[in-house]
Amino acid sequence: MIPYERMNDAELRQEYRKVSQTYESWKAKGLKLNMARGKPSKLQLDLVSDMLTVLAEPEDCMVDGTDARNYGELQGLRCAREYWADVLGCRWEETFVGGTSSLTLMYDLISKAYTHGLMTSPRPWCREERVRFLCPSPGYDRHFRITQSFGAELITVPMTESGPDMDMVEELVKDPCVKGIWCVPKFSNPEGITYSEETVKRFANLKPAAPDFAIMWDNAYCIHEFEGDFQPFPDIISLCAQAGRPHMVYEFASTSKITFPGGGISVLAASRENIDYLTKLVSVQMISFDKLNQLRHVRYLKDKQHTLALMKRHAVIMAPKFRTVLEVLEREIAPLGFARWNRPTGGYFVSLNTMPGTAKRALALCAGAGVTMTEAGATYPYGIDPEDSNIRIAPSLPPVEELEEAMQVFAVCLKMAALEKCMNP
Amino acid sequence: MIPYERMNDAELRQEYRKVSQTYESWKAKGLKLNMARGKPSKLQLDLVSDMLTVLAEPEDCMVDGTDARNYGELQGLRCAREYWADVLGCRWEETFVGGTSSLTLMYDLISKAYTHGLMTSPRPWCREERVRFLCPSPGYDRHFRITQSFGAELITVPMTESGPDMDMVEELVKDPCVKGIWCVPKFSNPEGITYSEETVKRFANLKPAAPDFAIMWDNAYCIHEFEGDFQPFPDIISLCAQAGRPHMVYEFASTSKITFPGGGISVLAASRENIDYLTKLVSVQMISFDKLNQLRHVRYLKDKQHTLALMKRHAVIMAPKFRTVLEVLEREIAPLGFARWNRPTGGYFVSLNTMPGTAKRALALCAGAGVTMTEAGATYPYGIDPEDSNIRIAPSLPPVEELEEAMQVFAVCLKMAALEKCMNP
Repeated sequence: MIPYERMNDAELRQEYRKVSQTYESWKAKGLKLNMARGKPSKLQLDLVSDMLTVLAEPEDCMVDGTDARNYGELQGLRCAREYWADVLGCRWEETFVGGTSSLTLMYDLISKAYTHGLMTSPRPWCREERVRFLCPSPGYDRHFRITQSFGAELITVPMTESGPDMDMVEELVKDPCVKGIWCVPKFSNPEGITYSEETVKRFANLKPAAPDFAIMWDNAYCIHEFEGDFQPFPDIISLCAQAGRPHMVYEFASTSKITFPGGGISVLAASRENIDYLTKLVSVQMISFDKLNQLRHVRYLKDKQHTLALMKRHAVIMAPKFRTVLEVLEREIAPLGFARWNRPTGGYFVSLNTMPGTAKRALALCAGAGVTMTEAGATYPYGIDPEDSNIRIAPSLPPVEELEEAMQVFAVCLKMAALEKCMNP
Repeated sequence: MIPYERMNDAELRQEYRKVSQTYESWKAKGLKLNMARGKPSKLQLDLVSDMLTVLAEPEDCMVDGTDARNYGELQGLRCAREYWADVLGCRWEETFVGGTSSLTLMYDLISKAYTHGLMTSPRPWCREERVRFLCPSPGYDRHFRITQSFGAELITVPMTESGPDMDMVEELVKDPCVKGIWCVPKFSNPEGITYSEETVKRFANLKPAAPDFAIMWDNAYCIHEFEGDFQPFPDIISLCAQAGRPHMVYEFASTSKITFPGGGISVLAASRENIDYLTKLVSVQMISFDKLNQLRHVRYLKDKQHTLALMKRHAVIMAPKFRTVLEVLEREIAPLGFARWNRPTGGYFVSLNTMPGTAKRALALCAGAGVTMTEAGATYPYGIDPEDSNIRIAPSLPPVEELEEAMQVFAVCLKMAALEKCMNP
């Protein structure tokens, strides 16, 4: 195979004819495959379904003298708070245990910043002239959309191999309108990058002009290695405290990819004062999140060690899928030289940068052949990738056989789109 | 027994000595009884605990081709939406199924009205000069606190025997700053009043000046009769549609007092257009509420008929408690002529009006003798009862024997406070 950039016009046209034929034959198969979202597979859900019956009798619902079936315990059951403190490496007083979705905890935090202000806010954000928010990109579309939906101005910060470009972050936070930053510090979405120790330290030592600057630290993949052993990761909450800004960070995690995405539990971790402040606001919103599900999780997952053993079993299911993705890319795309991608060891995604100006077209072709991918551009603020190059691959849902097919279709579509660009630059 | 108002000074002093002695003897017992909140009792929770194991196997989690364990179905499982439509008498497209707490759905609706505006809003409420909200009182403290926390001005509307004073409501809604009203239309909290058909019709036919006026219709006790048969109640959503204002009402309900307060499901019902509009906003906030718990509930509760049969079994537990409350009041207080109370047939509360200016004192005395009640004033906006007279009694939690004791203490405290007032008017 010759890299496309070294082909002449005739070679390009010939290659395009060949690739188009392959595309048409895939299209004729009428596939219906989905790699759009980081959804766990049925095998993974079955793996943890013993959890369903962990609470069976009324007595099972009692814990530390509390009946989890009844009202109360707004901040979450003590045992659930201790569980999360163990997993995240913080103290239980620094946790607030939520419902199924950590995204909801993030949304609610930003929402309360707008309507009531954070503990450190001089005024609610809806009374600010202008709110700007930093979005390391490629990043998680749902993060960006939260701040966008409240009217914040989103500022793209490039990702490097060790995390967000910290020189740029340190410069940008001098602007008092810059109120926060979205982070996925471990196995970032979508690049699978884990922030370096240096990056984490620079975060903890940020000196933002805004007193209520919020590091939104979404530790979604905190124990989600699918290759190799668990990699310990620093506790950002104590680091910020050591650096003298204890109230600057809000950490989030959930069991969505440990137990059930449609029935898990979540956590917000922050300084004790922040937790107290937010609890007071949340006390107007509810009496408590679902405590039975918190107890079910604690009884089933037990502690960090026990959960890590479970994650090894998830890894057995996940690893072959990532291998399939990388093998097809290696075989079909690498020799052609127009794309590059990451090789993550944890998380849920492979991030690929194809020939600039061809991502949208490639994914339209995919859709035409029955393969659904995350929308092109989704990994950038406002859904606009200025290079039209980044594509997020989510291999977790389909079984390996289907994934192999889906990746072959994807490779063909990447090629077609790139060839079209080469022929009509 | 002579009514206090007919006693002379000497009689009052003598009676006060007697009552004080009884109080001291209760105090000496070191009781610890709680009638503060409408918490179901352990017996009621045990009654429904078979629900815990309704979902046991992976196959149990499949419904209509959807795996309830995975992501998706933001508006709730179709079967859960149909369940609530059956209970409330609306259409399933008019429902959005939530998590444990209907209070959260109410809070989130008001929060979104402030940050984004309702579908019918000319602008978000945070951009309005002034927002006023109608609070029929005595009413539910947590309702009032939601609108208070967003800075709305709370306006008290008196309750009558057939619901809020509708003459006053119709007059007040002519003010375009008046953006909504809190309602508990059936077995209202705390008075146990069910709005008359006439009242409901006048609500549906309201012509508020504010285009985004919101009737917050908290149907918390929609099937919560504890005496007599289920009383059918009109569907406010279709009534508003018939009256030409289909988007004016938001109805809420939950299973908090049907299954588990700490692990139930909730619903928001509104016009289809409203549901679509809110779904779009909520799609930024989460991927879905807990669908496993939705499915668990549908499998266990089945439909309205089956749920009504369960409510009859709750009634068997609840009715004796209300009887105890009323018997003690009848025996100890009625002859003294200084208080009046309602005799509800459903809901969770007895509302009592004692001698004006003595409610706070009576409850302080209760607390002193180890009996915790809902704070005096809680049933009025800003927690201030201008008469210092209304007290909410929540008899559901303690067993009957304890309740009997708690009510005797309560009666003694009412008497002491009233006598003090008579002696020092």
